[in-house]
Amino acid sequence: MENVTVSKLKPDMTFTGDLLVRTADRRTGKTGRDYLDFTLCDATGEINAKLWNVDGMNWMPVAGQVISVESGIESFNGRIQMRINRIRPATNPDMRLLVPSAPESPEAMRALIDETVASFESEDLRRLVLELIAMAGDRLNYFPAAQRMHHAEYAGLLHHTTGMLKMAEDVCRRYPFLNRDLLLAGVIVHDLCKTEEMQSDAFGSVSDYTADGILIGHLVRGVAWVEEAARKTGVTGEIVLLMQHMMLSHHGEPAFGSPKLPMFPEAEALHWIDSLDARMNEMQTIQERTPAGAFSERIAYLDDRRMYHPRFPAPDQP
Amino acid sequence: MENVTVSKLKPDMTFTGDLLVRTADRRTGKTGRDYLDFTLCDATGEINAKLWNVDGMNWMPVAGQVISVESGIESFNGRIQMRINRIRPATNPDMRLLVPSAPESPEAMRALIDETVASFESEDLRRLVLELIAMAGDRLNYFPAAQRMHHAEYAGLLHHTTGMLKMAEDVCRRYPFLNRDLLLAGVIVHDLCKTEEMQSDAFGSVSDYTADGILIGHLVRGVAWVEEAARKTGVTGEIVLLMQHMMLSHHGEPAFGSPKLPMFPEAEALHWIDSLDARMNEMQTIQERTPAGAFSERIAYLDDRRMYHPRFPAPDQP
Amino acid sequence: MENVTVSKLKPDMTFTGDLLVRTADRRTGKTGRDYLDFTLCDATGEINAKLWNVDGMNWMPVAGQVISVESGIESFNGRIQMRINRIRPATNPDMRLLVPSAPESPEAMRALIDETVASFESEDLRRLVLELIAMAGDRLNYFPAAQRMHHAEYAGLLHHTTGMLKMAEDVCRRYPFLNRDLLLAGVIVHDLCKTEEMQSDAFGSVSDYTADGILIGHLVRGVAWVEEAARKTGVTGEIVLLMQHMMLSHHGEPAFGSPKLPMFPEAEALHWIDSLDARMNEMQTIQERTPAGAFSERIAYLDDRRMYHPRFPAPDQP
Amino acid sequence: MENVTVSKLKPDMTFTGDLLVRTADRRTGKTGRDYLDFTLCDATGEINAKLWNVDGMNWMPVAGQVISVESGIESFNGRIQMRINRIRPATNPDMRLLVPSAPESPEAMRALIDETVASFESEDLRRLVLELIAMAGDRLNYFPAAQRMHHAEYAGLLHHTTGMLKMAEDVCRRYPFLNRDLLLAGVIVHDLCKTEEMQSDAFGSVSDYTADGILIGHLVRGVAWVEEAARKTGVTGEIVLLMQHMMLSHHGEPAFGSPKLPMFPEAEALHWIDSLDARMNEMQTIQERTPAGAFSERIAYLDDRRMYHPRFPAPDQP
Amino acid sequence: MENVTVSKLKPDMTFTGDLLVRTADRRTGKTGRDYLDFTLCDATGEINAKLWNVDGMNWMPVAGQVISVESGIESFNGRIQMRINRIRPATNPDMRLLVPSAPESPEAMRALIDETVASFESEDLRRLVLELIAMAGDRLNYFPAAQRMHHAEYAGLLHHTTGMLKMAEDVCRRYPFLNRDLLLAGVIVHDLCKTEEMQSDAFGSVSDYTADGILIGHLVRGVAWVEEAARKTGVTGEIVLLMQHMMLSHHGEPAFGSPKLPMFPEAEALHWIDSLDARMNEMQTIQERTPAGAFSERIAYLDDRRMYHPRFPAPDQP
Amino acid sequence: MENVTVSKLKPDMTFTGDLLVRTADRRTGKTGRDYLDFTLCDATGEINAKLWNVDGMNWMPVAGQVISVESGIESFNGRIQMRINRIRPATNPDMRLLVPSAPESPEAMRALIDETVASFESEDLRRLVLELIAMAGDRLNYFPAAQRMHHAEYAGLLHHTTGMLKMAEDVCRRYPFLNRDLLLAGVIVHDLCKTEEMQSDAFGSVSDYTADGILIGHLVRGVAWVEEAARKTGVTGEIVLLMQHMMLSHHGEPAFGSPKLPMFPEAEALHWIDSLDARMNEMQTIQERTPAGAFSERIAYLDDRRMYHPRFPAPDQP
Repeated sequence: MENVTVSKLKPDMTFTGDLLVRTADRRTGKTGRDYLDFTLCDATGEINAKLWNVDGMNWMPVAGQVISVESGIESFNGRIQMRINRIRPATNPDMRLLVPSAPESPEAMRALIDETVASFESEDLRRLVLELIAMAGDRLNYFPAAQRMHHAEYAGLLHHTTGMLKMAEDVCRRYPFLNRDLLLAGVIVHDLCKTEEMQSDAFGSVSDYTADGILIGHLVRGVAWVEEAARKTGVTGEIVLLMQHMMLSHHGEPAFGSPKLPMFPEAEALHWIDSLDARMNEMQTIQERTPAGAFSERIAYLDDRRMYHPRFPAPDQP
Repeated sequence: MENVTVSKLKPDMTFTGDLLVRTADRRTGKTGRDYLDFTLCDATGEINAKLWNVDGMNWMPVAGQVISVESGIESFNGRIQMRINRIRPATNPDMRLLVPSAPESPEAMRALIDETVASFESEDLRRLVLELIAMAGDRLNYFPAAQRMHHAEYAGLLHHTTGMLKMAEDVCRRYPFLNRDLLLAGVIVHDLCKTEEMQSDAFGSVSDYTADGILIGHLVRGVAWVEEAARKTGVTGEIVLLMQHMMLSHHGEPAFGSPKLPMFPEAEALHWIDSLDARMNEMQTIQERTPAGAFSERIAYLDDRRMYHPRFPAPDQP
Repeated sequence: MENVTVSKLKPDMTFTGDLLVRTADRRTGKTGRDYLDFTLCDATGEINAKLWNVDGMNWMPVAGQVISVESGIESFNGRIQMRINRIRPATNPDMRLLVPSAPESPEAMRALIDETVASFESEDLRRLVLELIAMAGDRLNYFPAAQRMHHAEYAGLLHHTTGMLKMAEDVCRRYPFLNRDLLLAGVIVHDLCKTEEMQSDAFGSVSDYTADGILIGHLVRGVAWVEEAARKTGVTGEIVLLMQHMMLSHHGEPAFGSPKLPMFPEAEALHWIDSLDARMNEMQTIQERTPAGAFSERIAYLDDRRMYHPRFPAPDQP
Repeated sequence: MENVTVSKLKPDMTFTGDLLVRTADRRTGKTGRDYLDFTLCDATGEINAKLWNVDGMNWMPVAGQVISVESGIESFNGRIQMRINRIRPATNPDMRLLVPSAPESPEAMRALIDETVASFESEDLRRLVLELIAMAGDRLNYFPAAQRMHHAEYAGLLHHTTGMLKMAEDVCRRYPFLNRDLLLAGVIVHDLCKTEEMQSDAFGSVSDYTADGILIGHLVRGVAWVEEAARKTGVTGEIVLLMQHMMLSHHGEPAFGSPKLPMFPEAEALHWIDSLDARMNEMQTIQERTPAGAFSERIAYLDDRRMYHPRFPAPDQP
Repeated sequence: MENVTVSKLKPDMTFTGDLLVRTADRRTGKTGRDYLDFTLCDATGEINAKLWNVDGMNWMPVAGQVISVESGIESFNGRIQMRINRIRPATNPDMRLLVPSAPESPEAMRALIDETVASFESEDLRRLVLELIAMAGDRLNYFPAAQRMHHAEYAGLLHHTTGMLKMAEDVCRRYPFLNRDLLLAGVIVHDLCKTEEMQSDAFGSVSDYTADGILIGHLVRGVAWVEEAARKTGVTGEIVLLMQHMMLSHHGEPAFGSPKLPMFPEAEALHWIDSLDARMNEMQTIQERTPAGAFSERIAYLDDRRMYHPRFPAPDQP
Repeated sequence: MENVTVSKLKPDMTFTGDLLVRTADRRTGKTGRDYLDFTLCDATGEINAKLWNVDGMNWMPVAGQVISVESGIESFNGRIQMRINRIRPATNPDMRLLVPSAPESPEAMRALIDETVASFESEDLRRLVLELIAMAGDRLNYFPAAQRMHHAEYAGLLHHTTGMLKMAEDVCRRYPFLNRDLLLAGVIVHDLCKTEEMQSDAFGSVSDYTADGILIGHLVRGVAWVEEAARKTGVTGEIVLLMQHMMLSHHGEPAFGSPKLPMFPEAEALHWIDSLDARMNEMQTIQERTPAGAFSERIAYLDDRRMYHPRFPAPDQP
């Protein structure tokens, strides 16, 4: 029964599989016996669960932990509930089944980045970029790209970055006067400092911005990181300045956090690809929750516009 | 010697080939004999030319005409001058050698558009788009995309449109939730009414805007054209509205002429692709005239920024 | 008792007259007998009503219908209630008594428009305008001018249009260099496409905007209508372009939906007269609900200002 | 020959009439004899003039003076020149023939204002307004309404004010909830402090703004004037505040000098009538110098738009 | 026990001292006996109080009155309550203990202003300023500087003014080309008309803006006051204009209520000092309620920024 | 005669002293003999100079060099000219006499900074600031604060910084909740990276911005410098972040280059002091060249306002 998702559980089913613990409490029942009360979830929804027999249990599941359960599904007061029979810490759980996640695995996405860096003609640029990736460290594997709006999901930062990488390859092919090394390097590093800007748990869920994020921000922090990476790798000269400018200008204008406008074509293209990838992700999400032929509510972060979900290519009337 | 361009002419060379007449005047020399004084040009530059023997010449070249000449090059007062020996109207001249031009021929670019339309899954959309192309007529073959800035060149409108078409195919592949028919149709028609907005000569040089362009503009005129095309083809329903909205919203915001923001994903993508293609064309032009390692002057239509031409991947110091 | 309005009903009165059905439900009473429960209204308010004896009733009143009733007024749980004795569909009800309405009848207002069109010196303009009025059809008789704010009432669109017509005659007299035909034609047609922009019931109450209204809007739709009207009437030339420009520019600036600013004096005057008539209607409404000597709350659609109701010419202190 | 204007003078004509002295210089001719050299003008143009015989002349015309001349017209070096035979100071010259002027006489315009004030129902308001008019004094007779743009002419301030008065009467009739006394009083006084804001000569030509105009401006100075007028007349209470608010808010928004938006309907109407009258005057001037069927240049003070002069009701093609 | 503040009261304490009456009601208890129910406060908080024995009491305390009480503190339903034993009107209460107040007494602050005025070199300026202070009258002693935000406290207007005076002395010393008389005079009078703009009770608590405040505002009212003061004192000339300009321009730009920008250095300095003093007061308040190392919520009147309370110079980690 | 300045030279004077070479050319006179032609200047103006006898001269003065001359002053074609008798490289010239300069010597200003740093209570902050000063190096001694506008002079950066330091001490005294160390440290370092942003010669004259200045700017470069200084000094923790934020936010808003608004009180105060010092310097300069009682032209960098130079405390009329 491992393929059943939480959203599809019904009374009298059994469920065996991994779930994420949202809340876990030890309580005392009316009969005076202790039991464990959980909220458990996967990427499709959440369910209340009880473990009635806690005698001899020598560990306590905590919020944020993934557990493996064998259980039955019951109906209680009109709502379904999980009665846990066996429970243990999960081994090697698949995050993408448990929380909103990028469609590819972090490993696969990092592999694309690694291949791209390996293909650079410029040795200096390769060393700079590898150093910057190393500075972000393991956080890169699970960080989202934002607290809300686009790519707010497990590994969303890699999702956004690799989506941009593919688009950037296309843009380089269409406008061959662009320098591929420069544009792709900009794509890979442009949002790395989001790992300094936000506090994310291991599931890509952001609780708040950091002091560094509020007082400095990921664009300017990115400039300082490039400085540091250049020092560590011994790379000097124009390429360092170019990478710093791409970090700084990728939001495109002062009102959105870039004190400098993009001033060479690859910086401009980076800004454009960043915006497009974010915008398409946002619009796909809105379209998926708006019926065909209908308008969404006003969307504040899209300049307050309403989005229409065309029926086309279906016929006009449902 | 047909491959010599005007920019490379030097004294004592001969030149045989086609040139465009910018000015043509019949004058009387100091000896009392009439001669013809021309300014002639190709895409690389212009030159003064004289035809001293006009006896028995039974036609008069006029500005805007292409002529075929056999001539010698002389030095006069420190500037080179062409002495024309034989002259006749050109037969089947290649416009792209004579004025700034799109890199591909109009025929080749129109073929790409035709293939794209032929590939549409929606018969209604195909009929609408073909009708709209027909409404633009032959002007589509030589019109520029703008009076200044991007794609201000012979067949620049086709250049811009087909550049966008290629990019749009990439975008559809990267964001498969987009409807390819809809986006590509939007690309093909979005600027067709520039042929109503500006007055262009047959070489793609714009002298002024039309009354229709100033009072209505190509976006709103485009909406009226779609209405007309729908009536002629009998296409009805949502697809007509979608195409009108793409026409109207492709400049992205009221301040740039779109009273409505793009409200479905393909309309948004159209706006982004339009902006990118225009921007890349502008920046390439600026980069080509700015030495590596230097900054351009402030560019008014790029929000007054200066553009930098990176030396990279060349070494830092020249 | 026909002159009694709903707002003035009191226990033990009788009421005979026409009312609009807001809601109508067949219910079963505690005794097991069916009865009809209504919300009925006129322009001054609404009242709950019961029809206890439904036996042999072979029709069912529905929301939006006008009915003629004979009834008594009772007090129930501290609120007044209507007990209906006789009920039938109303014949030829006067809408202006039933919902907020323009002060003049649609017929009278249309007569003013007809006279104005008949007085045009330009035959072309007369044909264009008559065709456009015909395209709006019967909706013109009951449509409001807006969902909220100004002239949100039965026949409010005619109210707004004829108010502007009178003002425009004055403006023409004061600034005789203006062309009367052109300005008055612009006034008559400028908001006709609001009938495409909003969904109104027959009482001038708007439930929502249409897809056409959201994606295109009444200004640009108006341009397309003029194109269509010109085709149908065979009118060609500058006058078509002038009418399209007045349609498009009457909101005065891009931020309010006009991608083109008014570019001839009559277009400018149209914009000003439109603004004044809307503004005076809004301010009169606010003044009527604000006591003399007091300020209103902040009004969002008046740039967040508070309005003052002067005591003048009354003495300062009440 | 008194009806000939300067713009129509031709060689061998004689001219007898009044002209305004723009410049006047005593010079010494080649023969050693002194002569007077003038630039003289009327409302249609200017001409160079010489008075060769200055012996026994016991007065010297100065710039800004109006003189009566008898003269002949000659041609000199291809330009016409006036040879003055007799000259004397003009008695009771008609300013409107000599400089750009309001179409009505100052006396006639002031009479309209006086009648309007006399018709006020409110005695307090009449006294306030009369006091304010008195504070402006004789300057009101010749002041223009602006240095450039609208009503920059002799008595232009009265022209603007009386044009608004007529329009305001219409507005009161169309929107009868407005208080006529209040609106008309506002119209009469709204620009009186332009006489403190600018330095005008007696012909309504403004050389510069005053220190008061630059540091305070006519709106706020108007508030202080109302305070002063109230003190002098003993008028107190709400009406003083209302008049001050109309003074302050008549430019409609902070960006145009009004720190307060109009907050009662008459203040709003005043702003609207002021704007319309100024705008119509500007547009009429532009239209008069733009050929039918053509566009003007971009007009900076009309938000950079170009104005179109319609051919309508004339046929399309000239 | 007079030193105990309301915020520190605990059950079984006694309290003797002055308190401000926020609400006062006569009620009938369950036993049928009347009692008085109060909300009483000092600057630190408020408490419910009862006076059970009202027989023979020949006066009734009212909201806004200061009373002297002898009382005991009790616990009732988990909240503390005051049981009043003796009550009488307070004699000469110290406002600063009862409401949020400026740190210095009004008398001390007015003395600083008086000394400053006495030190002016310009006799004209001294007379003007003294007259303006007199026009504000006693309200100056208790008025706050604002309804909310900065210096919203008893005598806050004096607090703000004297804070600015001290800073202005420093600025004059640092930039000696500034005229000290002019700048200090500007500081003293710049906000005097806030006493006309708002309705404050005697404790510096503002209930609303006045009609004068909404329709005219304290900047423009200030200009009229200077005019009046000049008339009364007989001061004329440039100094009157300078003072009016400082009144009018001290908010620095049209969007904040100044139709004129500061146009001489002392006017500019006045604007800056005003802004700094207000801003520092606001920020100090925010910092005091934000823990070290934490961020405040977004502050609307600080352009929506969050404020950080540094731990420095304390060590980083608590 | 060493005290004579260039602006006071007259024919037949002699001049002995140091001058700065603006241009220096070796030319051949009409007689065939070579001579040297110079433009020489001091802080008050410039003069053409000739050295006729160049035989045996074994060095050539160059632009930017300071020379010591003995010379006579002559009149030639109505303009004065210097005839040089003896010339040698200057030894230890006083820059402040030769170009527009800060009123104090660089040494004196650096001493103030050094004393201030020495007075810090925080050892960490002292080490950070000293390292940052060291990174700016000797350029700090002569750099101006700007290319134009405020403190565009020799050692103008020190002038601006020390002016702010004094003001900041006052601000700390007036608002004692501010941390003195933090604010003064911010003042000292805030503009240090202007030495990276502009190219200045040794006289404080800026020819252009650097690539670093255009692509990154002194605010963001300052953040990177603080990072570097922290690494070198081993300082860590909140203080590093605070200094980086002050660097980044000191222009106060995104439109002026600060992507983050000041978020703690010392950062806000730094911004205010920076603006005031710049503004006062600009206004003093304008006032010095505007006669009392007159207005300046419109000043673009002061939001296009005109500045008034008050006559006060002098009597009104000159």
